[in-house]
Amino acid sequence: MIINNVAIIGVGLIGGSLGISLKDAGFKGKIIGVCRDEAHLRLAIEKKAIDEGTIDPCAAVLDADLIVLATPIDAIIPMLKKIKPYLKLGAIITDVASTKSAIVQQAEKVLGSAAHFIGGHPMAGSEHSGIMAARTFLFDNAVWVLTPTPRVPHEVVETLRTFLLQLDVRPLILAPDVHDQIVAGISHLPYLMACSLVHTVMTAQPLQQEMLTLASTGFRDTTRVASSLPEWGKDICVTNKKAILAGISSLKKNLAEMEKQIKNGNPEKLEAWFGKVKQFRDGMY
Amino acid sequence: MIINNVAIIGVGLIGGSLGISLKDAGFKGKIIGVCRDEAHLRLAIEKKAIDEGTIDPCAAVLDADLIVLATPIDAIIPMLKKIKPYLKLGAIITDVASTKSAIVQQAEKVLGSAAHFIGGHPMAGSEHSGIMAARTFLFDNAVWVLTPTPRVPHEVVETLRTFLLQLDVRPLILAPDVHDQIVAGISHLPYLMACSLVHTVMTAQPLQQEMLTLASTGFRDTTRVASSLPEWGKDICVTNKKAILAGISSLKKNLAEMEKQIKNGNPEKLEAWFGKVKQFRDGMY
Repeated sequence: MIINNVAIIGVGLIGGSLGISLKDAGFKGKIIGVCRDEAHLRLAIEKKAIDEGTIDPCAAVLDADLIVLATPIDAIIPMLKKIKPYLKLGAIITDVASTKSAIVQQAEKVLGSAAHFIGGHPMAGSEHSGIMAARTFLFDNAVWVLTPTPRVPHEVVETLRTFLLQLDVRPLILAPDVHDQIVAGISHLPYLMACSLVHTVMTAQPLQQEMLTLASTGFRDTTRVASSLPEWGKDICVTNKKAILAGISSLKKNLAEMEKQIKNGNPEKLEAWFGKVKQFRDGMY
Repeated sequence: MIINNVAIIGVGLIGGSLGISLKDAGFKGKIIGVCRDEAHLRLAIEKKAIDEGTIDPCAAVLDADLIVLATPIDAIIPMLKKIKPYLKLGAIITDVASTKSAIVQQAEKVLGSAAHFIGGHPMAGSEHSGIMAARTFLFDNAVWVLTPTPRVPHEVVETLRTFLLQLDVRPLILAPDVHDQIVAGISHLPYLMACSLVHTVMTAQPLQQEMLTLASTGFRDTTRVASSLPEWGKDICVTNKKAILAGISSLKKNLAEMEKQIKNGNPEKLEAWFGKVKQFRDGMY
């Protein structure tokens, strides 16, 4: 199987960066971009993210060997229903959404044997969004998770994996539910905590202004991801409910334990705990 | 009052950067550095952070018009007791510790009328520490909080404030307890949350390795401050107990509220909350 024609549905930060990266990597096939807004399509063409653009996803997928859904999570399943009658025989469909179990399950149900669906999630992004934020190095050295179920033939998975290897990414195969547990810990909980920290300052009367004046690089970095799209925040809470609730539960336990230590005034124990955390974190980067 | 001779006790990241910044700003007076380790003093001289170095704080303060304590928090009060008999008449002493109420109260008690103590806290730093991390632009445009009590004469506060204006910093006068409430929200809670997020990954068996593989820039930035010195973490918990406990309590309420919303599946309400948080955070930077 060879992927010549690619349709990217949703040419924002991720879809646009994918197109730009493919072109920069020397991909010779055709890339059609789909988006509801023609002005965005023109921008995507100017930025060399796509060769052609259309607002009609059904027309875009007719000749596509690979369809990448780079829309917000809750648009994926309605989009699959819409394009299903127009798919090319043997087409591979993937997405880039931040959660996988719910989407993969529904996608396979909707598509039946009309196409091969392989869930995808590039571990790269930004708090910015839209085609203007798209750039070629977004995926550099990033892990790109694929979550095929046993229904997808091995050679189809290999076709998509090999295709991604053109980019400077590291494809990694995971089960959908394992993926969801992992991202709860490294992405969804950090987002919720960042929001919670911002909320604390936002509602800190009468000291809010002083907090804004004193907030420095530490606060900036710790809360950067709170600037992600609210729609994304909602979507992860809806589609990764179980893993996120387990994570919140674990954070609440941590906070209660810290509270206990601080109240009881056991500085050595606190310092030892902070030391272990620092050591682990220093080893990560 | 003119500040000609400065003693910096503790020539690590903050003390060292202060010396370098003063020299770069054209300060013509003498800077003596104090540190327990002679190798560090030599490094500080090489980096042009200090003119002279000594391991004897009592000798260093004899001629000092301004003494800056840039040691870890819990070394400040013992150091004040030690140098008290050797202080020059009218000397100003300041510190750079992250909490102020407890230190200012104890410092005034220890010093009596032997010197003017003005608590200080430059709102700049890094997860790195030590003289090797010291650099001239660390304080660029940073807020530098001063927390004089009513015991300090106005002209003494003005002398220190004017001295700091040589650097590219923004001095800000706050009451010690107000300072402590503010930094709990913008620095101490973010640190505790960052540690808690790292801890969640650290203890996430059997998925720890996969989490490390998938963790991207979002996790890196959100947890950067967890690499701060464990000793600092302990010190803030001991000296800013009340404000930190109030903050933990507020975070726990936020988590419980999010938990409720996620369980009840009210996506619109969640999205609206995330939206308000994003708007506020986008307005900060």
